[in-house]
Amino acid sequence: MTLKESWLLPEGIDELMPEEATQLERMHRLLVDRMQSWGYHLVVPPLIEYLDSLLTGTAKTLDLQTFKLIDQLSGRLLGVRADMTPQVARIAAHRLRNNAEILRLCYIGSVLHTLPASQASSRNPIQLGAEIYGHAGPESDMESIQLMVELLEISGATGSISLDIGHVGIYRGLADYAELDQEQEQAIFSAMQRKALPEILNLLSGYAITETARSMLAALSELNGDVSVLDKAKQILHDAPDSVLNALDTLVVLAEMAKQRLPGIQLNFDLAELRGYHYHTGVVFAAYQSNSAQAIALGGRYDDIGQDFGHAQPATGFSLDLKKLVTRFPKPTEKRQTISTVWSMDPQQLEWVTNLREQGNIVVFELPGSKTPSEKKLIQQDGRWQVVETGTNTRG
Amino acid sequence: MTLKESWLLPEGIDELMPEEATQLERMHRLLVDRMQSWGYHLVVPPLIEYLDSLLTGTAKTLDLQTFKLIDQLSGRLLGVRADMTPQVARIAAHRLRNNAEILRLCYIGSVLHTLPASQASSRNPIQLGAEIYGHAGPESDMESIQLMVELLEISGATGSISLDIGHVGIYRGLADYAELDQEQEQAIFSAMQRKALPEILNLLSGYAITETARSMLAALSELNGDVSVLDKAKQILHDAPDSVLNALDTLVVLAEMAKQRLPGIQLNFDLAELRGYHYHTGVVFAAYQSNSAQAIALGGRYDDIGQDFGHAQPATGFSLDLKKLVTRFPKPTEKRQTISTVWSMDPQQLEWVTNLREQGNIVVFELPGSKTPSEKKLIQQDGRWQVVETGTNTRG
Repeated sequence: MTLKESWLLPEGIDELMPEEATQLERMHRLLVDRMQSWGYHLVVPPLIEYLDSLLTGTAKTLDLQTFKLIDQLSGRLLGVRADMTPQVARIAAHRLRNNAEILRLCYIGSVLHTLPASQASSRNPIQLGAEIYGHAGPESDMESIQLMVELLEISGATGSISLDIGHVGIYRGLADYAELDQEQEQAIFSAMQRKALPEILNLLSGYAITETARSMLAALSELNGDVSVLDKAKQILHDAPDSVLNALDTLVVLAEMAKQRLPGIQLNFDLAELRGYHYHTGVVFAAYQSNSAQAIALGGRYDDIGQDFGHAQPATGFSLDLKKLVTRFPKPTEKRQTISTVWSMDPQQLEWVTNLREQGNIVVFELPGSKTPSEKKLIQQDGRWQVVETGTNTRG
Repeated sequence: MTLKESWLLPEGIDELMPEEATQLERMHRLLVDRMQSWGYHLVVPPLIEYLDSLLTGTAKTLDLQTFKLIDQLSGRLLGVRADMTPQVARIAAHRLRNNAEILRLCYIGSVLHTLPASQASSRNPIQLGAEIYGHAGPESDMESIQLMVELLEISGATGSISLDIGHVGIYRGLADYAELDQEQEQAIFSAMQRKALPEILNLLSGYAITETARSMLAALSELNGDVSVLDKAKQILHDAPDSVLNALDTLVVLAEMAKQRLPGIQLNFDLAELRGYHYHTGVVFAAYQSNSAQAIALGGRYDDIGQDFGHAQPATGFSLDLKKLVTRFPKPTEKRQTISTVWSMDPQQLEWVTNLREQGNIVVFELPGSKTPSEKKLIQQDGRWQVVETGTNTRG
């Protein structure tokens, strides 16, 4: 590599310079404070751990996204986390295991992806999220959605958030009902994710399933829109098994709750929304900003993950990329004034400097031979130290 | 891997549960605020980058400490950072390059080591540090030392910090003067790091060097102690070349500055202190807590690193492991009271909850069917919402 190249970063890997870094730091504090004020306990899982633990109960996609390392101490395979959710689930199932009570955990940290999750995605996001363990009802899903929306609003996404809400139990229940084999289930799933209706119809017409099952599966990808979609779904899916009807009922309850709790937010119910299908077990949700097709926060229920760690418990939560929020919703940074002062050996000056810094000022020593542009100066005038505007100091 | 094992972490890899995580978060904020109040600008370099960039201008040890990855997008070798200093030097030399002014940068982030740096060391420290670019005088070394000490004091190490200060230019100058070949210089260096005086004498007696050179090199490993060591060194090394005498003078100036600026701190000058010898170019320093042999913060001058990125400029700075500080100086966490409240659909309750949270309280919704232990409750009594001590609420 030539000198010229040695400062280039790999594609999809980015870093933050002072202005954005300060915004990230500010947002980090605001969001962590807010999650804690909701009763979520902060945990700090490690960047790497045994690959098996990182991929426990998760989908194949996460395996492909995860950088692998050899542990020189054990010879075993390690992974650099591509998602912190399985780590937090591990902590909830073991280190903070508590059979009696609800456990609320939150986290923030860097993750890495071998390849960008989508075009123009960062390969080194800063993941921030919150999870509730031990509660199976729609109230915990609602709490997750509400906290997610509140964090997005704090981040500056006010007034432009819409939510996509689905329930993986609906497609899963219908696939069971239709007795699709694994390959068929996967084929329809894949077409449904691409909203490819002709392909779905074509596939379904080739399967030996009942007409009822076929028509219900075909209808799914069109059950997409505002809350009225749920009524329509109840009619179309009235012959579906209980698991599907229960899932629909959960969505109806959520819609009802959202009316009160998320009055300004546009809800879009999408019964073919199957993001994280192999991982999620219930409600799934995603937040969008009006002018972008890429979700800015994602979440859902994943009741099975604890089981893989030997302690089954219901779980729901969400996460987002804080770096993406910071770059998408930049805040004008309040420019803090800098006070500069000459390098001297006067102990009184040192006392002044310390006090000024503790009062929230930026005080910079002028290192001999250097220029230090500043709005103000701490100078010694008439025998005592004082802060003056730059320019008023005839000696400076 | 069995279920039982799936929640174990690799040796030397640790994670923080809520109490420690909250302390880490608190310390993170205090220290970043303090560095910023000194005029240091925060940057956020990426977890991984091209291996060549990470190892530019650094020592072989860093190469061995660095986990290697293959970039699936470019096929090139990536490294997971084992040290953020080269990244910040890259940023200073390129993205924030500024030929006229002093540049002060600070950073905080996770790093990874393939093997523990020393026994009982963590392999996933959280590195925090500050660097000054563009100033070659002892004032910038002093500023680095002083900021490092101030951060340690904020962290709770009050009253028990001692500093080891050395200058790699002394041994380097003497080795040049004695015309040691590379192998000889390395052999003495290695013995000196282990303070193995008999071995040093034995090695020196086998080399064809002048008696003056031999006696000066032999004396180095005993020039170790309080400020009086510098006077002694001036006598013993009076025939040394200018580079050595200049290095000694720098230490004398630092000792003088420290008298005023670090009055409570015990200084230990060690002319055989060669930590980072292949990387550092001037003053090196380390902070110890009285009861431990392991440094809690390290730093020094490394003027050559910018050159490797195509932009030579003087540089000095320090870094520390924030996780180590948090576990070594635990603070009693102020227990924040939790207010719980039933899950209801009353919009007035939601307003109360939001206000209480914004005022800094933790407010937790009791999810149906769950227990939520709390010190206080937000309840509806006589038609209005109010916060009461738990126990005084007859309905709760």
